[in-house]
Amino acid sequence: MTTSKFSKQEFLSILQSVLGKSGGAPIALHEPNIGELEHELVAKCLNSGWVSSVGEYINEFEQGLANFTKSKHAIAVVNGTAALHLALHTVGVKPDDEVLVPTLSFVATANAVAHCGAIPHFVDSNLETLGLDPVALREHLRATASLRNGVLHNSKTGRKISAVVPMHTFGHPMQIEKLLEVAAEFNLTVVEDAAESIGSFVGMVHTGTFGRCGTLSFNGNKTITTGGGGAILTDDDELAQRIRHLATTAKLPHDYEYIHDAVAFNYRMPNINAALGCAQLNRLGDFLAAKRLLAEKYATAFRDVSSMSFIGEPGGTTSNYWLNTIRLKNPNLAQRDELLVAARESGYLCRPAWNLLHTLPMYEDSPRADLTNAQKLWCSLINIPSSARHYLGQHSAS
Amino acid sequence: MTTSKFSKQEFLSILQSVLGKSGGAPIALHEPNIGELEHELVAKCLNSGWVSSVGEYINEFEQGLANFTKSKHAIAVVNGTAALHLALHTVGVKPDDEVLVPTLSFVATANAVAHCGAIPHFVDSNLETLGLDPVALREHLRATASLRNGVLHNSKTGRKISAVVPMHTFGHPMQIEKLLEVAAEFNLTVVEDAAESIGSFVGMVHTGTFGRCGTLSFNGNKTITTGGGGAILTDDDELAQRIRHLATTAKLPHDYEYIHDAVAFNYRMPNINAALGCAQLNRLGDFLAAKRLLAEKYATAFRDVSSMSFIGEPGGTTSNYWLNTIRLKNPNLAQRDELLVAARESGYLCRPAWNLLHTLPMYEDSPRADLTNAQKLWCSLINIPSSARHYLGQHSAS
Repeated sequence: MTTSKFSKQEFLSILQSVLGKSGGAPIALHEPNIGELEHELVAKCLNSGWVSSVGEYINEFEQGLANFTKSKHAIAVVNGTAALHLALHTVGVKPDDEVLVPTLSFVATANAVAHCGAIPHFVDSNLETLGLDPVALREHLRATASLRNGVLHNSKTGRKISAVVPMHTFGHPMQIEKLLEVAAEFNLTVVEDAAESIGSFVGMVHTGTFGRCGTLSFNGNKTITTGGGGAILTDDDELAQRIRHLATTAKLPHDYEYIHDAVAFNYRMPNINAALGCAQLNRLGDFLAAKRLLAEKYATAFRDVSSMSFIGEPGGTTSNYWLNTIRLKNPNLAQRDELLVAARESGYLCRPAWNLLHTLPMYEDSPRADLTNAQKLWCSLINIPSSARHYLGQHSAS
Repeated sequence: MTTSKFSKQEFLSILQSVLGKSGGAPIALHEPNIGELEHELVAKCLNSGWVSSVGEYINEFEQGLANFTKSKHAIAVVNGTAALHLALHTVGVKPDDEVLVPTLSFVATANAVAHCGAIPHFVDSNLETLGLDPVALREHLRATASLRNGVLHNSKTGRKISAVVPMHTFGHPMQIEKLLEVAAEFNLTVVEDAAESIGSFVGMVHTGTFGRCGTLSFNGNKTITTGGGGAILTDDDELAQRIRHLATTAKLPHDYEYIHDAVAFNYRMPNINAALGCAQLNRLGDFLAAKRLLAEKYATAFRDVSSMSFIGEPGGTTSNYWLNTIRLKNPNLAQRDELLVAARESGYLCRPAWNLLHTLPMYEDSPRADLTNAQKLWCSLINIPSSARHYLGQHSAS
């Protein structure tokens, strides 16, 4: 265990050099940054009396998201899970369909599929991007699925495979353009889970805007927060209108009558949360700059470490570095946990990747591809503290 | 149309006498009342940085709800629809079950059933309480359903009927004790939809605490608001724990690992919404007093009107008078609409009851009982402006 002991000291000393000494309270993995503008807009919202499902801040927040992501439409909802569920439902995922999702993801990705009555079908990750591997997916589908009358079927289960949900892991863009090619080959609808990647781009194009639609999350641990919240991005006018309709109980416009024309949801983001979101969105550029600076510090500090490496943004992409991540060069669960625990004991709240979704009891019977790379990643990834506050306001002086 | 013309003038003159002249902006049906305490607690929440799914206000709001309703547990969630969906899911409503719901209700009551994959089975309302009629329900079930091994089945569809969802319409308590007897006879689980009835009691017992569990809503149009929000009430420790678990992605407690043991939801109320709720709950007593005073004014004003009557709380109950309601003595859709439109044109935003759920396209094939009374009610009910503000602070001086 000498190597491990050495690694542990090196790891802790890097955390301290980049983040400073942990004082009384531990340094969080990621925490919101709430300032004067947030207070101002939320107070204005309270003064207006419009705190609920209708109000100017919802419109402003949606417009701001659309502008920032260059998406034609953004529809704000109660959280990222609701966004993904509603997106999958609206693009036509039906009960008993299978939907391809990376096993290396937060559980919401699979739950949103299950909320449609559909079955997650787990696929492998790319070792470099940490996202769904399009090449492995193509091989898997060529070997185990077939198109009949333009509809993809799982040859083993006989079920329709209707959609694929790539996720931009920890903010690093996955190979979305390659995935679009694979999706076209197999006639799959692409719904991008960009819950973690607001501010992440492939070239100049924002993540979440490549597929039929994409989803964002504004949970408290995300780059910007609305308390709880999410959004759906799409360029498709008709789809956007349908999503908006289904997010608000499918009520038909009428001066006073209550007529609804579909089984629908109560998923609209309240105006008070949107007011918070407007302020956060206004500061997103500063957060991204501070997070990039933090990532640069980490990258430099980990450069010459022999046992672990810092994961940078994939070539041709810009990551928001939502959660900074290191990788053990030799995947080893025991060592991962030793480092994690040591860091936590020293006041740095590190975290492993999520337990792989196909290993969770409710999904252990779900169909799956070979998941070797995801297994390796799970044993070797550690998220390290990533809040914007560590370098906020310092990027212009750096 | 002479009668109608006379009724119209009488109606408008009563609205004006009780609410005052409508000025530039129309008088809303029900609007939130946001004061200093709301500003104070929300600002404190923002200062704390804990705006998302964990925080002291969530705990405080839940404890406050539990104290007020004398329910052992209250679990705060994102809205009333989510509350009802999660309640039905957790008590064991399964796909293809039927769930008995009043056709005279907001669409969320039926949607929550559909979100479980179950089928709403519509039943009739009582002309006095406006809620589900337990006597009619008993007759309907005796004639059309049968118990086999303790499980109720619809004789026509063959499906299991697993639960019944009584709703306290416009805040007026329905005959919940009689319903509990019927539910016991047919082995039905009772989930109370108390979305509209915070502050409404049967005797000394709060609505929503009679069934296996009950649900509340804090939408912007409700007696108190959290922007968007809801809660589940239950005295059952195990059920409460399960609901809380399933509301938060079924994540098992662990220092750092992400292990989830069921398909679950992201339904937890954010702390910023709970902060607003804590302030509102603190003022609930004042709101209820003001609303009761308004209802008394209406009751007096409508006492001698020949064509319509004001609906008071059922005997033995205390209503929160969420939405004050008048009834045309002769149910007549055309007259209802004439009065509604006239009131709206004069700046009083009145509203009809919801279109009956069994008439909506997505539910038109759902099983149903005889719905004669609900039809009568639909043609004769008009909700009239009910905000607390009209008499807030005047009850002690009255």
